This record gives sequence, C-alpha cells and structure tokens, in this order.
Amino acid sequence: MLRGFDPTLILVLDLVGTFAFGLSGGLAGVRARLDLFGIVVLAAVVGLAGGITRDVLIGIPPATLRDWRYLAVVGGAGLVTCLAHPALERARRPVDVMDAAGLAVFCVTGAATALDHHLGAVEAVILGTITGIGGGILRDVLVREIPVVLRTGLYAIPAIIGATIVAAAHQAGHDGIVFPVLGAAACFLIRLAGLLFELNVPGAPSLTGLPPRPAGLLGRWRRRRRRSS
Amino acid sequence: MLRGFDPTLILVLDLVGTFAFGLSGGLAGVRARLDLFGIVVLAAVVGLAGGITRDVLIGIPPATLRDWRYLAVVGGAGLVTCLAHPALERARRPVDVMDAAGLAVFCVTGAATALDHHLGAVEAVILGTITGIGGGILRDVLVREIPVVLRTGLYAIPAIIGATIVAAAHQAGHDGIVFPVLGAAACFLIRLAGLLFELNVPGAPSLTGLPPRPAGLLGRWRRRRRRSS
Amino acid sequence: MLRGFDPTLILVLDLVGTFAFGLSGGLAGVRARLDLFGIVVLAAVVGLAGGITRDVLIGIPPATLRDWRYLAVVGGAGLVTCLAHPALERARRPVDVMDAAGLAVFCVTGAATALDHHLGAVEAVILGTITGIGGGILRDVLVREIPVVLRTGLYAIPAIIGATIVAAAHQAGHDGIVFPVLGAAACFLIRLAGLLFELNVPGAPSLTGLPPRPAGLLGRWRRRRRRSS
Repeated sequence: MLRGFDPTLILVLDLVGTFAFGLSGGLAGVRARLDLFGIVVLAAVVGLAGGITRDVLIGIPPATLRDWRYLAVVGGAGLVTCLAHPALERARRPVDVMDAAGLAVFCVTGAATALDHHLGAVEAVILGTITGIGGGILRDVLVREIPVVLRTGLYAIPAIIGATIVAAAHQAGHDGIVFPVLGAAACFLIRLAGLLFELNVPGAPSLTGLPPRPAGLLGRWRRRRRRSS
Repeated sequence: MLRGFDPTLILVLDLVGTFAFGLSGGLAGVRARLDLFGIVVLAAVVGLAGGITRDVLIGIPPATLRDWRYLAVVGGAGLVTCLAHPALERARRPVDVMDAAGLAVFCVTGAATALDHHLGAVEAVILGTITGIGGGILRDVLVREIPVVLRTGLYAIPAIIGATIVAAAHQAGHDGIVFPVLGAAACFLIRLAGLLFELNVPGAPSLTGLPPRPAGLLGRWRRRRRRSS
Repeated sequence: MLRGFDPTLILVLDLVGTFAFGLSGGLAGVRARLDLFGIVVLAAVVGLAGGITRDVLIGIPPATLRDWRYLAVVGGAGLVTCLAHPALERARRPVDVMDAAGLAVFCVTGAATALDHHLGAVEAVILGTITGIGGGILRDVLVREIPVVLRTGLYAIPAIIGATIVAAAHQAGHDGIVFPVLGAAACFLIRLAGLLFELNVPGAPSLTGLPPRPAGLLGRWRRRRRRSS
C-alpha cells in the first residue's frame, strides 16, 4: 500500500509517533502514582497496544513486538517521562503536537496494513482508527479512567478521516504516495484544530432530563445564549 | 456443527443478537455520558467483542470484523441508541428480551464455532460462554464498572447451559439441528426466568463477618425469616 | 528450550503455579463481592490470562485453553476459594509463597515458549514477564483497581530477572536444564525478599510538589531521617 513511500521515512515517522504516544502513557503513569516499572509499562502500552491490537485482529503476529527499535523507543519514552515529567507537564503544547503527529502516522499505517492484508475498505478504516486510539483507551482503563477518547475532544474523528482517505484512495485504485500523505495531513490538522478550538463530538441528545454535558465551544455558546435569553 | 441449519436463519438470528447487544452497549455509553463516537464504539464493543475474543482464542482471524453486515448492524445500533435512548430506557422489558435472544444465539454459535475447529467439549462450553458474555464484560470495564455478569443476576449460567447442551450433543455424535435449537431455547428461557424472578448466583459463604450481599429472591426470603425469628 | 527438563515436572510446577494464581484471583473476587461464577472467572483469569496473552502475542493458539488439566485446576482454585476463603485470608503467608512459586515458573516457561518460537531475547524477556504478571493486571482491571503490580511492591522485577537469565543463557548457547532452574530460583527468592522486607520499585522523582508516595523500607527510612533532622 505504502509502496511508493520511502520505507526509512515511514519507519522514522512511526517511531516518532510511538515515542510521542509513549510520553503520553508515561505521563498518565506518573499522574496515577505508578512506580518506575508501571510508568514504563504504560509508555509501552500506549505506544504499542494500538498496533498490536490491529495485528491480532488481522490475524498476524504483532510486528512491533519483534522489532527491538520499537521496544527501545517505548522504553526510552518511559524513562524520559520518569526523569523529565515536570518539564513535560509544562510543555503540554509540544507534546500534544507530537501526539497529533503520532495519531496521523498511526491511522494511515494502520489502514495501509489492513489493506495490505486484503481487508475491505470499512475494515481498514476501523483498524486504522484502532491503531490510532487503541493505546490511549488501554492507558485510561489501566489507570481507572473512562477512556477520554470516548467521552470528549476531537481525537477519533481525525483518525477516522485520515484512514478513510487512505482506504477510499485504495478502493479507487490509487496506491501511490499522495493519498497517505494527504490522509496523515488531514488527520494532523483536524486534530490540531480540535485542540486549538476545544472542539468536541456532541453526545446523545439529552431528552431525559439529564443535566447537560460539559462541552466545548458549542456548549459555551449555548450556555451564553441561555443566560442572555 | 450447525450444518443442518439454514445459514440465512443463523445469520439473521446472529444479526438480531448483535443488534440487541449493540443497544445494550449504546445505552451504557449514553449513561456514562460518552460522546457520539464513544456511544457507537460501545455498541460495537458489546455487539462484536465476544465473538472476536472467541476467534482470537481459537486462533482464527475474527470473522465479524470482515463482514460489513455485522459492522453495519452495530453502527446502526449505536446510532439508534443516540437518537432513541429515552424510548429505549422506557422499553427495558423488550430490550432485555432481545438481549436474552442475543445471549441464546451467541452461546450456541460460539460453542458450535469452537467444535467446528476441533476443540474439546469443555473448551467449546467456555468459548460459547465467552461469546455470550465477553462483550458485556468489556462494556463494563470501559465505563469503569465491575462487570455486572460477575457480580449478580443470572446471565452467565444460561449461556453455560446452552453451550453445554450443544457440546454434549456433539460429543454424543448428534450434529443435527435439534440440540442447538434446544440449547438456545434453554438459555433464552432460563435467562427470562432469571429476569422475571430476579434470580442471582449466590456469592461465597460469608463467614468473615462481611455484611450480606444485596441478594435476589433467596436473600429477601432469608431476610424475612431473620426478621420474623 | 526446556528440553533438558522432565516434562512431567514442568507440568506439575506449571499447574501448581496456575493453582496459586487461581487462589489469588478467587480471593480478589470474594473481596469484590462477586458471585460464585464471578469468583471462578477471576480465578481462571489470573491463572490463565498471562499465558493466553503470551500465546496470542506470539501468534499461536492458546495452549492452556485446550488442556483440560489447566481448566480443572483454575476451576478447582475458584471453588476452593469460595469454600475456604476465610482460611485463605488468614493464611496470607503460604498463599504468597505459592504465588511467588507460580511467578517463578511462569516467567521461565513464558520466556522459554517465546524462545521456542524463535523470538529474540528482549521479546522473550517481555513475554516471560507478561506471562507472570498479565493475569494479575487483568484481575485488578476487572475488580476496578489500578493494577498493583504497576504501583507498588517488588513483583515484576523478579519476573524480569528470571526471564532475563533464561533468555541470556539461550543467547549464549546454553539450552540445558541449569539456567531455567537458576532463573526460577532467582525470581522466587527475590520475590520472597521483596515480601519480607516490603521492598518497592521507586516512583518518578517527585519534583512537582506532589506529596510523597506511600513507600516501603526506603520510604520509612527517609521519613525517619526527616523527622530526626
């Protein structure tokens, strides 16, 4: 699928994404007061679990687990978090941007891996999305949070869009280098826009008298309208 | 295993079960205040995770993930929950009956799939039960509950009985259509009886001075006896 | 890998470890007020999940699920816990020693299984560790705790050391009986020392003004020094 691509470039991007995801896992571990081992495990979980889940669901042996470079990168991310977590907490913005880059790479390589194994377009979108968000879901389950990606923020939607662009291009017979780049760029930019404007996916329309959900821009606008009326 | 069966009928039953399980997942998502994406994910998890876990444990590529009909059904269940959750909350009874039908179909098809792949009878019972209850366990973990099927109610026992009937019949050389129907019917009716009479599996005998567990019929009867004595 | 070994001895040790892990799962189930089914499920999860996860990650069908002896042992552990949990709670020490033996057996057989399937040394260490601690992590997730092995105590480190001894010996061309025994012994003794002296893996250095973590010997010593100064 990504044959037109320079394999070294893909590897480097993938390792950068894995490292960024590892930092996010390590920080969650520090916040949950885990010990050093737990912090490294959480870094590894967030960096690798999405791709491992994808491979298990496709029915192939997980690739990252057999590649020392990925293991070294998540181990390094865990140790860096242990040592530098106060600096990382202050540098939320750069970490978020790196995380968005990781999401963009993962959704595209995830979808491409699925297409390489002859799965359909819809399955490729699902597996690309799982590659992108699976690690974060497991992170939240392990530190006993309801997965944030299921609750709020614009995190899964960019991944779905990026994977969809790759799968649709493949479906249409375009297997070149252009559409994966386009998919990753779309995912990256939408994710950044979501961070910048605090966008959220809406919840179920609340007709049962439940109090309104904590919401982003739209919610704030609605509340303002309510107050002024 | 289910060769005597009309494949279309099995498919339809399986899709109905998947839809019912999807509704249960979607409702859990609405209650946990997830966003639209989270609600659809929870519907997919409850509808598909049991069968996917079964396939991974057998060592075959998950079938439902490669079948657009299952994906469409769980997606539909998620969207229906988003739009109609107040109506679904009011209609607990029909939803519970559909869920019981799903459990009945899943435990039988799960056990049959295991037997088709030459696993033993005990393994077939375990995998049939996992097919039936796995999605609900994952649903509760994701919304940060202790899985209800492990705590209370008569949910796993009907699935075990249904799967046991199928596995025992296979062991005895009966591979026809009768015993799967019997197993599904037994599971369905025992589950309905459990709902109707609020039956529970007892907990460990409480000799350590722990206060008694909240219990169903039997517990209420015991409490009444205690008060009157 | 463990070819020099008496297979019956390995099986017996493995079943003893599975039983000990099953007791730990059953006790967690009793404490979380699960019903009888839930207690047996938790015993099975802790006894089997580590090895099943290892097999899925290697890409082979889970072996224990196809072996009635393992299923009988975890089922038995669950039932024993149900009946005898007050006695087991009082006998924490013997149960902990059995659990340490289980950890020692699991990390060694886990690493050996990975090496048998031609994975590298680092992967073998990771998979040996997962075999040892995976069940306990899943146990804690199911009863809604942050996994204790990620937070405190000296539990994963002994498993890593045991698996490392096996993998390093294999790497160096020693495939005999000596190093697996040595690895298991090292894991067992370090785990016991950890229990005896309440050793903990340190957390991330706390430079952000977070209050100090609850700690073992080292922490107590530090607090004493602080008070006396």
